[in-house]
Amino acid sequence: MIYFDHAATTPLDPRVFEAMKPYFTQWYGNPSSIYRFAQKARQAIDDARERTAKILECVPREVIFTSCGTESNNFFILGAAAAYKKFGKHIITTKIEHDSVLKPLEHLESQGFEVTYLDVGKNGIVDAEDVQKALRPDTIFVTIMYANNEIGTIQPIQEISRVIEYYSKTHPQPSILNPSPLFHTDACQAAPYLDISVKNLGVDAMTLNGGKIYGPKGVGALFIREGVELTPLLFGGGQEYRKRSGTENVPAIVGFAKALSLVQSDRKIETKRLLKLRDKLINGILKKIPESRLNGDSKNRLPNNINVSFRGLEGEAILLRLDMLNIAASSGSACTSGYLEPSHVIRAINSNSEWTHSSTRFSLGHGNTEEEVDFVLKHLPKIIQELREISPFSSGETYGFPR
Amino acid sequence: MIYFDHAATTPLDPRVFEAMKPYFTQWYGNPSSIYRFAQKARQAIDDARERTAKILECVPREVIFTSCGTESNNFFILGAAAAYKKFGKHIITTKIEHDSVLKPLEHLESQGFEVTYLDVGKNGIVDAEDVQKALRPDTIFVTIMYANNEIGTIQPIQEISRVIEYYSKTHPQPSILNPSPLFHTDACQAAPYLDISVKNLGVDAMTLNGGKIYGPKGVGALFIREGVELTPLLFGGGQEYRKRSGTENVPAIVGFAKALSLVQSDRKIETKRLLKLRDKLINGILKKIPESRLNGDSKNRLPNNINVSFRGLEGEAILLRLDMLNIAASSGSACTSGYLEPSHVIRAINSNSEWTHSSTRFSLGHGNTEEEVDFVLKHLPKIIQELREISPFSSGETYGFPR
Repeated sequence: MIYFDHAATTPLDPRVFEAMKPYFTQWYGNPSSIYRFAQKARQAIDDARERTAKILECVPREVIFTSCGTESNNFFILGAAAAYKKFGKHIITTKIEHDSVLKPLEHLESQGFEVTYLDVGKNGIVDAEDVQKALRPDTIFVTIMYANNEIGTIQPIQEISRVIEYYSKTHPQPSILNPSPLFHTDACQAAPYLDISVKNLGVDAMTLNGGKIYGPKGVGALFIREGVELTPLLFGGGQEYRKRSGTENVPAIVGFAKALSLVQSDRKIETKRLLKLRDKLINGILKKIPESRLNGDSKNRLPNNINVSFRGLEGEAILLRLDMLNIAASSGSACTSGYLEPSHVIRAINSNSEWTHSSTRFSLGHGNTEEEVDFVLKHLPKIIQELREISPFSSGETYGFPR
Repeated sequence: MIYFDHAATTPLDPRVFEAMKPYFTQWYGNPSSIYRFAQKARQAIDDARERTAKILECVPREVIFTSCGTESNNFFILGAAAAYKKFGKHIITTKIEHDSVLKPLEHLESQGFEVTYLDVGKNGIVDAEDVQKALRPDTIFVTIMYANNEIGTIQPIQEISRVIEYYSKTHPQPSILNPSPLFHTDACQAAPYLDISVKNLGVDAMTLNGGKIYGPKGVGALFIREGVELTPLLFGGGQEYRKRSGTENVPAIVGFAKALSLVQSDRKIETKRLLKLRDKLINGILKKIPESRLNGDSKNRLPNNINVSFRGLEGEAILLRLDMLNIAASSGSACTSGYLEPSHVIRAINSNSEWTHSSTRFSLGHGNTEEEVDFVLKHLPKIIQELREISPFSSGETYGFPR
């Protein structure tokens, strides 16, 4: 099989699995227990937290382990909304966030919050100036992803954090207790390839996810800058500095930290390797397949992301043909495939429906080789040609799909 | 090591780990992806759900997988409160629930909900008649645990569900849309030993936890009866029938179902085996150690739970001595140890502080043997005697600890 769907989920790195194993069967104690046997589990969590904090350039108690990226995003969004609503009910985000950001925001709208959804350019990148224009005295937080899961575009997180800082300095808040608007970023897709130092990025909160970094599923992290108070999502035994209750998932936490260390220490070499494959695949597709188009900026994108559209076609049909050749790729984001609606991300950068339905994502990773790229380049043109021959929408006359 | 802390967490059953392994490294696909490779993961989740539903005697879509027992409890409590608050803001529970029930309820109180905390008898069991008396037209739900995590007492769940049903029949609700008060039970501790058929129990919702049934940590389940609408805790990609978003933790879900099957199919034999050990340990302690006392009912308790107090002593000191002999036991619940406050459960059944500080829990499990019980019976009397000799509170004259 050719696995080109690393943005949906990554295989577990065997080194990560090895690191996890002893905590399944040998050191299975509950980290909150006081005897020495359970302290082995406690120590493992402490080590994982320190290791993660070192990579993020923060202090360990600013790292909260959660059950996934979705929980981290929900925890920040719902937790900050509940804790800061006394200061305002305005939130800023973009139209291309992941559903685990957009859906809790929709929920907040039904509770009386007001959300500004910023447009992105045709290149799939938000303009920091648009953030500046949207900031208001009642803005409590801004949440903008670091790199997009579908089209891989990298957002100007540092610029946005400077814009927010500048706004706070020049616009004193109505209450002395009201901090400047918080800035959260979802870095799930960025973590294997980009600098995730929260010091460099200037964010107040950041989401990470084990299942996208060759770590285990079922574990995530939320960096929360000291002093930021979030209302918990999970109340109970008071684990994770009373911010997230529930018996700690020790093997998964150990695996998360190990995986993060591995991807971050290899990220420059891996980026260089994947850039070559990515650009070969993009250029090959655009050259060999007529009426094909790259979605998202060609430079400012993750080194593993290829997202292309083929005029007049339907993404699912392409995926099924690829699957017959044992190529795993994706259309829209994995979480929402199975629905016929075109992806909200593709619609945000391209309103023409003869292009939006066919977006196809190849997301590369560890095991992928140039031979695999060549294999796709050999077969994809035929697939597209065959589909166009049978498609009722390929004549070039029928614009727009039935909805 | 003698592990007598199975109520804090159980070791992972090697058969469960074997069942999980292929989903870490081989079938790592995202279950929401449409290609065949990922459908292996989807199939594994479907199978796990069917297997779980069969044990619970419900339909598969009534089983929602979560990240732990704490999440399941929070999901029911916060989700039902948000969804049903239009019909009332009154909730009934007991004073001996787990913190993952009590803390979200406290949070709801701060949001204008009213919670009735029922007393339990000296035996640690709630009276179903007290539930009946507490029910009101604005009661939206009742949440009472199946078996207590600290003292192992089994609550009369069937009786309580009949009481609620009777109340609903005889007291028409103010709104036709308002269902009868929902009944939720936390069955985390009960699952390895008791009948957990939701049909027999008559509950509308039930919490289960992988880490207490020889399954993996980081996974739980919530049974939600069809027709019960809970506001989600985690919004996003719409996994788990749109009730709980987040990429499914496939190996953990597979492990959960496998573990639940194993404990439930062995439960009668294991109960019989543990009852002998439990009663030998209880009777031995009470006979050999002066001024010792069993906490909770002697008959109506889990077959693996021994919870005893030693007049005038402090639980942590006992645990440390046991630890020196490589015996892992617990004082209070694991989630809250490390705090000096005596357990809220022990206080609920025993207000005399010369007894409440020394509650010590031995919770037995799979690997435990009669030799281990004998070992504790040999050493514990000496430990208690030595501690009493050095304790300033052991003279029998000083009642009450400094707080």
